[in-house]
Amino acid sequence: MPIVNVHLFEGRTLEQKRRLVDEVTKAICNSIEVPADAVRIILMEMERTDFAVGGVLASDKNK
Amino acid sequence: MPIVNVHLFEGRTLEQKRRLVDEVTKAICNSIEVPADAVRIILMEMERTDFAVGGVLASDKNK
Amino acid sequence: MPIVNVHLFEGRTLEQKRRLVDEVTKAICNSIEVPADAVRIILMEMERTDFAVGGVLASDKNK
Amino acid sequence: MPIVNVHLFEGRTLEQKRRLVDEVTKAICNSIEVPADAVRIILMEMERTDFAVGGVLASDKNK
Amino acid sequence: MPIVNVHLFEGRTLEQKRRLVDEVTKAICNSIEVPADAVRIILMEMERTDFAVGGVLASDKNK
Amino acid sequence: MPIVNVHLFEGRTLEQKRRLVDEVTKAICNSIEVPADAVRIILMEMERTDFAVGGVLASDKNK
Repeated sequence: MPIVNVHLFEGRTLEQKRRLVDEVTKAICNSIEVPADAVRIILMEMERTDFAVGGVLASDKNK
Repeated sequence: MPIVNVHLFEGRTLEQKRRLVDEVTKAICNSIEVPADAVRIILMEMERTDFAVGGVLASDKNK
Repeated sequence: MPIVNVHLFEGRTLEQKRRLVDEVTKAICNSIEVPADAVRIILMEMERTDFAVGGVLASDKNK
Repeated sequence: MPIVNVHLFEGRTLEQKRRLVDEVTKAICNSIEVPADAVRIILMEMERTDFAVGGVLASDKNK
Repeated sequence: MPIVNVHLFEGRTLEQKRRLVDEVTKAICNSIEVPADAVRIILMEMERTDFAVGGVLASDKNK
Repeated sequence: MPIVNVHLFEGRTLEQKRRLVDEVTKAICNSIEVPADAVRIILMEMERTDFAVGGVLASDKNK
C-alpha cells in the first residue's frame, strides 16, 4: 500500500514509463511518508478509440 | 467527474463505440444533472478468455 | 457483461441513483445490443476531498 | 455480486486461467456464502513494462 | 502481483473477511503458482443502493 | 487523461492529501509531458480490515 492505477493513452516509450513510475513513487513517498517498496503502480494503457470526453471519442476530436 | 469505466467484450465496431459513449454520456447528464464535458468514459475491452461467471470462462460456455 | 464503474461525487438522492442506473443501462442496451440483465453498474461515490484536477482538490476549488 | 478484478502478468495458459477462475470462485463461495453464479471475475493482464514496485518497472528488475 | 479487487456488499463480519482473503490467496497460489506474499487483495464494500443489475438498484429488488 | 486511482489506507490529513495530489500531478506532467489540468486523481481510501497481503488482513498483522 498504496496501489496506484494510471490510465493513460498508449504510445509512451519505455524510458517515459521508467521516469513516470520513478517520479510518481517519489511524489507519493514524499507526501504521505511511506517507503518506496510499499508503492505499486499499474500502467493501464488505452487507445484513443477507447476514451471519451463529453460523449466524443478522443480519436474523433479535432477532426 | 463523473468518470466511468465500462468493462465489455472486445469486438465492437468504432461506430458502436461512438454510439455507446454518446448515449451513456447523455444518460448521465440527464439523470444527475452534470455538463457533458464533465463526463469521462474509459472503455476496457476484454477477451472471452478473461471473464468468468460461476467459475467458468466465457470462452468455455456453450461448448 | 458489461460491468460499469461510475465514480461520482457523493450526495445524490436515491431517486437520482435510480434514474442514473436505469438510463445508463438503457443507453448501453441500445448502443451495443446486450440484454438489460447482462448490465451491472457499481456506483463509487467519493468526497470532494478525494478528487483532484490539475493537482488541486475539488474541495479547494473556488475558494 | 461479488465482482472480482484480478490484475496479473500476461503469459498464463488457458488451462491456468480456467483453474484460477474456478478456484477463486469456490474460495469466495465457501468464505462468504454466495452462489457460484453470482461471482464474476475479470482477468486484467499486463506486461512487465506496465507494473512497478518501489519506482522500478518489473521488466527492469534483476538486470 | 497479482493484485485483486473484490467488489462486494457491505455487512460481512471480520471473520468472514479473514476467511475470504485467506482462501482467495490460496486459490490464486495453487492455480497460477505465485508465492502468497505476492498476492494483495483490496475489499471494496458497497451498499445495495450503489449496485444495479438490469437497471434496477439491488436495494429495490424484491420489493 | 491521465486518470489516476490511488488506493491507500484511510487516516491521512487534508494537508497530506493536498500535497499528494499536487506532487503526483507534477510527477506525471514532468515525466510524460501532459498539462496539469489533464490529470485527474481519485483517492480511494480503505480500512486495514479491507486489505490483505499473503492472505492476512493488514489489521491482523503484528498482533
